[in-house]
Amino acid sequence: MKRSLVELISAKRDGVELSADEIKRVIASLLDGSLADYQMAAFLMAVFFRGLGDLETVALTQAMLESGQVLDLSEVPGVKVDKHSTGGVGDKVSICLAPLVAACGVPVPMVSGRGLGHSGGTLDKLEAIPGFRTDLEVSAFARIVKDVGTCMIGQTKEIAPADKRIYALRDVTATVESIPLIVASILSKKLAEGIDALVLDVKVGRGAFMKTEAQARALAEALVRVGTRAGKKVVALLTDMNTPLGNAVGNANETREAFEILHGRGPEDLRECTLLLGAEMLVLGGKAANADEARKSLEAAISSGRAVAVMEKMVAAQHGDPRVVADPSRLEVAAVEVPITADRAGFVTAIDALEIGLSAVAMGAGRTRTDQAIDPAVGISVEAKPGAKVSAGTELAKLYVRSKGDAALTAERVRAAFSIGDAAPPAQPLLHGRIA
Amino acid sequence: MKRSLVELISAKRDGVELSADEIKRVIASLLDGSLADYQMAAFLMAVFFRGLGDLETVALTQAMLESGQVLDLSEVPGVKVDKHSTGGVGDKVSICLAPLVAACGVPVPMVSGRGLGHSGGTLDKLEAIPGFRTDLEVSAFARIVKDVGTCMIGQTKEIAPADKRIYALRDVTATVESIPLIVASILSKKLAEGIDALVLDVKVGRGAFMKTEAQARALAEALVRVGTRAGKKVVALLTDMNTPLGNAVGNANETREAFEILHGRGPEDLRECTLLLGAEMLVLGGKAANADEARKSLEAAISSGRAVAVMEKMVAAQHGDPRVVADPSRLEVAAVEVPITADRAGFVTAIDALEIGLSAVAMGAGRTRTDQAIDPAVGISVEAKPGAKVSAGTELAKLYVRSKGDAALTAERVRAAFSIGDAAPPAQPLLHGRIA
Repeated sequence: MKRSLVELISAKRDGVELSADEIKRVIASLLDGSLADYQMAAFLMAVFFRGLGDLETVALTQAMLESGQVLDLSEVPGVKVDKHSTGGVGDKVSICLAPLVAACGVPVPMVSGRGLGHSGGTLDKLEAIPGFRTDLEVSAFARIVKDVGTCMIGQTKEIAPADKRIYALRDVTATVESIPLIVASILSKKLAEGIDALVLDVKVGRGAFMKTEAQARALAEALVRVGTRAGKKVVALLTDMNTPLGNAVGNANETREAFEILHGRGPEDLRECTLLLGAEMLVLGGKAANADEARKSLEAAISSGRAVAVMEKMVAAQHGDPRVVADPSRLEVAAVEVPITADRAGFVTAIDALEIGLSAVAMGAGRTRTDQAIDPAVGISVEAKPGAKVSAGTELAKLYVRSKGDAALTAERVRAAFSIGDAAPPAQPLLHGRIA
Repeated sequence: MKRSLVELISAKRDGVELSADEIKRVIASLLDGSLADYQMAAFLMAVFFRGLGDLETVALTQAMLESGQVLDLSEVPGVKVDKHSTGGVGDKVSICLAPLVAACGVPVPMVSGRGLGHSGGTLDKLEAIPGFRTDLEVSAFARIVKDVGTCMIGQTKEIAPADKRIYALRDVTATVESIPLIVASILSKKLAEGIDALVLDVKVGRGAFMKTEAQARALAEALVRVGTRAGKKVVALLTDMNTPLGNAVGNANETREAFEILHGRGPEDLRECTLLLGAEMLVLGGKAANADEARKSLEAAISSGRAVAVMEKMVAAQHGDPRVVADPSRLEVAAVEVPITADRAGFVTAIDALEIGLSAVAMGAGRTRTDQAIDPAVGISVEAKPGAKVSAGTELAKLYVRSKGDAALTAERVRAAFSIGDAAPPAQPLLHGRIA
């Protein structure tokens, strides 16, 4: 007997596993209005408490995916691979990773998001490039992926509208923090890109959505299980987000730093994170037999200048000024520098990524509501990473602001984000784990 | 720091106890529109899983109560006591109980409800009396309680509007079955009557909302704890609802049977239930030192005719024909009788109250939606209660219908509600427990 919608809510409330058809009926009913928002909210809270089985999560992912357009990249030859990060502070990896992997022969169609709260967004960072457009038509997106090897756009209205609808509800009903709901939200959007494989960068720590390694591992495992059941090749890495990644936190300065990686320069942790993820993408994309081989291939794409060349082509194809790639200083960073200095001697033992991210938001580099504008030129540069030996007066960070007054409130907050101790801290590994 | 509404939802989701002010803010925000229905639905589902502490439930009760009018019965002297039943099949106790208790000197202001689903409603039963009105103004209600000792009306729009709003949401979001939400719903309406004390009849069994004794006891205990904390004298009895109470199930026939009790006649179980509840009311009302004394007082009110006289006055004051009390046969019962007979010899071992209630609904004596009309004249009369020895062909029940065809579908269902075994069943006690 067909269960009513209220019976489906009460079944989930009581921990009963729903069929794939029932899950799909819930989503279809939400979209056609026969399930009210308040019923969906109750369902989501029941899911928060009871969870979803993998088959239910696959069905939810597919229902959300099929609520909109699935990009057709069949004209692009090869195994198309994307990367998704669960978000952090200073995480500009996508910007250097996509051209680097594309330069090794793996097509990377990438649909990215904007920053919200302490966590930055790839689109905001890319839009620091003069003229750069992220709102391309799907046909242009597919053509650029085919011709250049990669293209980075924003989510169109047509991609997974059910996810937008459900996410808006989750945001105001305290049902964001549910692993199956997070999994379905991420995968429905990524699978709508027409990809064959996906590498997930699940961030863990102070500046991540998942604060503990256990939470992050549970999310990574669920993403890999559900993505695999949905027919894709999926690998997840758990990487550290206690400390901001790289040195730059902001937008234009982060894009500058990502370009530095393509030139074989830039911070070691950012380079390492990029190579770790890129190696997984090359192996999934069939362009390397193993991680070692992949890494050599990625390093060669940097040293040969092929990665820079792909990036220049992509920027040009997306209407941006390609000269910024060769000369990152062309990206405008706010002119007023405010140094943040150590008030004692010792070692930097920790830099609170969450506090740095929130400071950047307060400076105007991020937003607390989706309708807020940002200033791409302002930002923070971390000058002393954990382990650095400092004296009183050593520069810990720089703020880039429009005028000195703008830094007044933030300076103390940034300074307080640095912990200084008497002994050097143990080395923090970047990679916390790998799930495949 | 004042928590946002979303933070209150997430706090409750995480099992954090909210302050009384926070609970009141949730309700006020629902009523002023700043908390959306979908947020309330998520909150209610969180309460379903996490429960509410007694202080939270008191705050919720008071917020719902204060969302509307609280009846002012200060002009009525004495300790005003009401009774509330959680609902069952054949439960016409209120109709004989109110005049009986009033005849012993305890004022009984009673605001009742209508039937829904298998469970009947006092208002529907009373409206079988020609001319009887349950939609009186509050001023008339207070005057009749003062002059006659009791008055029975329906819930006005002004009483606890927040409860109506929340109940409508609970009904469609699978959040009805939550003890603190049930407690707040019941008590907010009852406390709005301006009473000093309340006796609760928590039904348990097949035909009750609470199917198991453990559930019913948990509800009764919560009602007593929260009602007491809200400043009222509260006692709860757990009474059996596996079998219909009394013999009549319907509306006019139930009112007839309730009047029989006032005349010292009628079914034994109905009389016992009425006296048990009445004794508690007299003790709470300060008109008897203990249950024994109260019971003697109630029996004297019946044998002296005083209870009948109060009922006649109440019916007249509420614009009904008072002659129905002395002569219950004046209440129209449908003319066509369809006997339901035993198909084998043995003992009646059980009568499924839920099935009898649903059969009555199917006949037109009840409703499945609140906007449906009922036929007060149709109904069922149980002729052989559990323990009765029957032969093949012995009458188990009678259906009262408008025409024989109307009974076709129901007859088999009613017959199937009777279990007949070889041995007499153990006696089923009416009283399962008392919580005070």
